Amino acid sequence: MNSFLKISISLITLLFFGCQSTTQEKDISTSSELIFPKGNQLESENFKGNVWFIPLIENDSLNQNAVGSVTFEPGARTHWHYHPGGQILLAIKGIGYYQEKGSPRRKLQKGDAVKCPPNTPHWHGASPEGEFVQVAITGRADGPTVWLEPVSEAEYNGLTKH
Amino acid sequence: MNSFLKISISLITLLFFGCQSTTQEKDISTSSELIFPKGNQLESENFKGNVWFIPLIENDSLNQNAVGSVTFEPGARTHWHYHPGGQILLAIKGIGYYQEKGSPRRKLQKGDAVKCPPNTPHWHGASPEGEFVQVAITGRADGPTVWLEPVSEAEYNGLTKH
Repeated sequence: MNSFLKISISLITLLFFGCQSTTQEKDISTSSELIFPKGNQLESENFKGNVWFIPLIENDSLNQNAVGSVTFEPGARTHWHYHPGGQILLAIKGIGYYQEKGSPRRKLQKGDAVKCPPNTPHWHGASPEGEFVQVAITGRADGPTVWLEPVSEAEYNGLTKH
Repeated sequence: MNSFLKISISLITLLFFGCQSTTQEKDISTSSELIFPKGNQLESENFKGNVWFIPLIENDSLNQNAVGSVTFEPGARTHWHYHPGGQILLAIKGIGYYQEKGSPRRKLQKGDAVKCPPNTPHWHGASPEGEFVQVAITGRADGPTVWLEPVSEAEYNGLTKH
């Protein structure tokens, strides 16, 4: 009975650590989901909360689109703003929010794509629950982003159509 | 001794299926790395091998960029072609190849971004080792894609600058 106990304890230990090891592999696999580097933290008065940005493609005379990846910490968001050349957003990770002036706030999740027309005020950011990563494709032909007022707490919380 | 054997077999079974179950969870986690749906298989004479496409953003009069996710099976590739409005590619998963006419073949991996100028013949596709997923941002203002000849095996294998 003594050897029975020993073997049982060994098997239980093996079961525990065997599965532990697999779980660790899973964690590594999860961290590799990051596609683009996080880049540098933005120092800008036009955002609330911590936001990181990495440029992926600069606009030039032949292609006026600038492409970059933006990472919002939970609760971080842009101010209201518009792009004279319009913008396309691709949600890469997490749950985010997007709102155009006059429309309800929308939830964005991994795989969602949004087209924001030129000169249309809007804001975007992360939900309070987790980091949100988006790729932004911004038309630069007609001028730079125009920044407006901060997003109110009521707007952020989806309590107003603005 | 009979009950010892029974319990040991139970524990070994638990060890096996317990870890199996964790491995299955890992598989689900891996498959959840897919950001955009694979979409539909392309029926086109302008590709070699199996390719899937899902449109994410259609171009319109206000924003002439079309955005879509393309999945190439291992070894699949486009024919040579060019875009009158140019193209931006974002590598999302796997190892791919990209070549512009007159330049060496480049390797693309997750996180890479490529800007292909307007009217510049090029091809892209998956390496032989695994599936390659890319997001394509294509300017449609100046007309549709112009398709050219197939990519030769020497070109695909990086043996020529074309």
